[in-house]
Amino acid sequence: MEYRAPLRDMQFLIREVFDFETHYGGLEDSTPTDLDLVEAIIAETARFAEVELAPLYQSGDAEGCRFVDGQVIAPTGFKEAFQQYVEGGWGATTGDPDYGGQGLPHSVGLFIEEILTSGNLSWTMYASLSRAAVNTLQAHGDAELKSRFLPKLLTGEWTGTMCLTEPHCGSDVGLLTTKAEPTAGGDYSILGTKIFISSGQHDLSDNIIHLVLARLPDAPSGTKGISLFIVPREIDGERNGVVCGAIESKMGLHGNATCMLHFENAKGFLLGPENQGMRCMFTMMNTARIMVGVQAVGLMELGFQSSLGYAEERRQMRAMNPREPGRAADPIIEHADVRRMLLTQKAFLEGGRALSYYVVQLADNVAFGSSDGQEAANRLLDFLTPIVKGFVTEVGYEAVNEAVQVYGGHGYVSDNGVEQLVRDARIARIYEGTTQIQALDLLGRKTLGDGGRALADFMAVLLEEAAVSTHGDTLRHLAQEWEDLTRILGADAMRDQAIVGSAAFDYLMYSGYVVMAVVWSRMARFAGNDDFGVGKRQTCQFFYDRLLPRAEGHRRAIENRGDSIDSFELAGFSHH
Amino acid sequence: MEYRAPLRDMQFLIREVFDFETHYGGLEDSTPTDLDLVEAIIAETARFAEVELAPLYQSGDAEGCRFVDGQVIAPTGFKEAFQQYVEGGWGATTGDPDYGGQGLPHSVGLFIEEILTSGNLSWTMYASLSRAAVNTLQAHGDAELKSRFLPKLLTGEWTGTMCLTEPHCGSDVGLLTTKAEPTAGGDYSILGTKIFISSGQHDLSDNIIHLVLARLPDAPSGTKGISLFIVPREIDGERNGVVCGAIESKMGLHGNATCMLHFENAKGFLLGPENQGMRCMFTMMNTARIMVGVQAVGLMELGFQSSLGYAEERRQMRAMNPREPGRAADPIIEHADVRRMLLTQKAFLEGGRALSYYVVQLADNVAFGSSDGQEAANRLLDFLTPIVKGFVTEVGYEAVNEAVQVYGGHGYVSDNGVEQLVRDARIARIYEGTTQIQALDLLGRKTLGDGGRALADFMAVLLEEAAVSTHGDTLRHLAQEWEDLTRILGADAMRDQAIVGSAAFDYLMYSGYVVMAVVWSRMARFAGNDDFGVGKRQTCQFFYDRLLPRAEGHRRAIENRGDSIDSFELAGFSHH
Repeated sequence: MEYRAPLRDMQFLIREVFDFETHYGGLEDSTPTDLDLVEAIIAETARFAEVELAPLYQSGDAEGCRFVDGQVIAPTGFKEAFQQYVEGGWGATTGDPDYGGQGLPHSVGLFIEEILTSGNLSWTMYASLSRAAVNTLQAHGDAELKSRFLPKLLTGEWTGTMCLTEPHCGSDVGLLTTKAEPTAGGDYSILGTKIFISSGQHDLSDNIIHLVLARLPDAPSGTKGISLFIVPREIDGERNGVVCGAIESKMGLHGNATCMLHFENAKGFLLGPENQGMRCMFTMMNTARIMVGVQAVGLMELGFQSSLGYAEERRQMRAMNPREPGRAADPIIEHADVRRMLLTQKAFLEGGRALSYYVVQLADNVAFGSSDGQEAANRLLDFLTPIVKGFVTEVGYEAVNEAVQVYGGHGYVSDNGVEQLVRDARIARIYEGTTQIQALDLLGRKTLGDGGRALADFMAVLLEEAAVSTHGDTLRHLAQEWEDLTRILGADAMRDQAIVGSAAFDYLMYSGYVVMAVVWSRMARFAGNDDFGVGKRQTCQFFYDRLLPRAEGHRRAIENRGDSIDSFELAGFSHH
Repeated sequence: MEYRAPLRDMQFLIREVFDFETHYGGLEDSTPTDLDLVEAIIAETARFAEVELAPLYQSGDAEGCRFVDGQVIAPTGFKEAFQQYVEGGWGATTGDPDYGGQGLPHSVGLFIEEILTSGNLSWTMYASLSRAAVNTLQAHGDAELKSRFLPKLLTGEWTGTMCLTEPHCGSDVGLLTTKAEPTAGGDYSILGTKIFISSGQHDLSDNIIHLVLARLPDAPSGTKGISLFIVPREIDGERNGVVCGAIESKMGLHGNATCMLHFENAKGFLLGPENQGMRCMFTMMNTARIMVGVQAVGLMELGFQSSLGYAEERRQMRAMNPREPGRAADPIIEHADVRRMLLTQKAFLEGGRALSYYVVQLADNVAFGSSDGQEAANRLLDFLTPIVKGFVTEVGYEAVNEAVQVYGGHGYVSDNGVEQLVRDARIARIYEGTTQIQALDLLGRKTLGDGGRALADFMAVLLEEAAVSTHGDTLRHLAQEWEDLTRILGADAMRDQAIVGSAAFDYLMYSGYVVMAVVWSRMARFAGNDDFGVGKRQTCQFFYDRLLPRAEGHRRAIENRGDSIDSFELAGFSHH
């Protein structure tokens, strides 16, 4: 599948909409970052993704991973491309300079992530979990652990994983039973089975560093008794007790191995304090959640490009107002509903990208900003993370399905590659916390749980935008509505907390549309008068006209939450 | 994948909601039909689907079809199951008694269709296109053609296809170039290539009867110059010039062969008048469009059953209001958002089923009803067909995706079969006319094009329901809104018909929600006080509370149609 990185749109966001020049100037502890450097990295990443990764996208899907004698062999070409990635130094971009990293802010990692994802998501997954592992190690590891593991994770010679899920527990990590027994040597012996481990075993790197959640002896039950361990597949060249038992056959992501891993008294090293594993793992998960939102953006980009190209070439039927008289048929892009499908993709894609840039700017501030702004940045980041993960993956799935729909029957067959986008994008609504988990996180923890402070912070951002927006009235109206809705939900939840569960999904979607309205308004303000700028403003208008009205459906669904969910008698589900 | 036919729900619709006893009593020309016979057929079909077809669902997907030396070999077990279908006489159910059919009304064919689809859609597609071919032959064939082809199509020894699409034309059939030259013998020589032919070649039947659209010499261009031909793969045991060039690799439906067929001066027989092929083919397409809506129902049923079973067994996290104190985790069905996903499936599934029963009752009336009611029944049938096809397949796709979501990561892996439902259901939004084609048909032809008469007819049905419904106010409000919306669109379209294109999709979805609200209200009225009945009423309430509000989003999108689609400058699509 062909891919061309959307450099113009990225530059627009970096230089204009979010003014990363000023932003980078204000960061205190990162490597000084100038935009020319960032754009050079982006350009080089674009070349790599376009030339090396994209050609392996469909072939990697068709070939899949092979599981032979406990070893996993990635699709043809993946290993060679990974070698280039290592040689190019991409893995080190955002790493700690004390251990070989370039020390660039998180945002640069995210720009790279999106481009690599568009090039080849299955391949990128081998690299990208390392970034999450690196962040965790940098945040919670002591000097010994860092010096032992960081350097080769940063070069990419080693890759990382995160091992949470077990056969009986997914969303409910607190149920996990993998054990960690202290050993005489001061380390730990890890015993248990983990499933659904992305990139859990493969032939691209010399070693794989697993970050594993497990329980110490006599640890409290639930999430308060979980600790985090580093469990390398190999230690000093010797195999550790980590055995891949199987790889999953699955809907998509065929090029990335989803593994069952048995830890058979494997040697592990405690990362962070005892019984604080969940807190430490959240460093990894928050990175990964934003990453998954960005994956949805990367797949939308591919679907948009592909279906746009098709719509410009394919001729079927006359347009209602034909531009070229006398032709038997017009390019389908002239048909209003094909445009609607393309504009829907463009609106969710560019809106999702802008939102991810905004969020990662906050992540930069949390990590490297001046200390007086960190708490506020962190609160806003926490608030927006479930929206980037939950909302963007939901609309992202819709968008890639629209790409298929533009192709019609030619989208359902494998040749054009767009059906693969649907299969690959489907997992984004599930892994790193399902949409349902994100929704509960947003409404229960990040909104009601913090007394509405984060929402109030975002409301200030919203009203600031409204004050200078051509959509000011709409935004102010939404702000009022959102506040009212939240206040009523909060009061109701005091009486019956089950309300939170039955309102959470619609609340997430409502919030997502409003947040996206804010970033679209901002983009429209910065758009110039060239084709690109006019297209931006028109897409913004389309978003407000045709997509934002859905927020009203979600709002009414929340208002009507009544008890039609909570009081439903289970016996009533059967219709046999 | 396990399947149990929803006999209780079917009986409820047949005996109570739509009173098929009275309905069948009023049909004039069909074989006398009593409900015991119908339910015996349903029970036998259920057994066949549950025991013979369902076990081949996942294996057929994994194995797929093989293309060897121009022959297509269906997955293991398909041929044997088809032999049982032939022996059981299912193919003859709705056929003309003069040619070996049982002469039962269309509705019985649809009850069978849904059950077979749930059992195994890929397999069922080999059988079900025959039913569409049979209807066309019965409606437009002369006695000679009927006696030559109908008997073996009705036994199932032969199967049928419909051949419209060519490489350069899908939605726009008028562009087709396949040629039909009259021969000295009074027949025709067919030359051209057709693609995307479902069941186009396979090893289940002795012969395949292709219904092919082609152009006679000097025929007018466009759809007015298309004629319909019967082109058998074999004639009197000799191969005709029909060659399968390839089968498609595709997202789903792996067990059904999607073929490229070359007609190499194949012998064909004209079916219906010259240049009237589109009109004749519409007999086939209308049957097929309702069938596709029913396919979506059948797949939803499977997804609902499967995810309901999983939600009852799988334990994760405590419910907000736990029913069993002291457990580490509750069945996920206790979590509000899991219930929301199950209820969403149940609402669309049972609503879609009820709508399909209503529509096929109209089809019975058109075929066999008293002559004074036929015109009105036909108008309503024409009006509702794009809604059954377009709306039910759209929400059906959402529903099977919710089935995956209930499973979480376990839904993305292949073992549980639900990801296959998504891949199989995706095509329903495309084939037999995309959702876009249905939307244009509904708004352009069936609503504005007939001066609003069909809508007025349905409005009478709606208001009659409103008069006796507990949701009467809501229904009356929707009726007013729908009429206003349609009147405004009609007026706007007089000035600029491009409006039709940019409003059509949202109009289809809006109409679909309102129509489904009517059938849900009707079901709730007939529901008793047992678990099943209480569940019905609560699901109805859920539909009104949580899903119907989306109609408002679609209505506003139509109101805001403005010119954000039509005036969009093509250059603005690029963001490179």
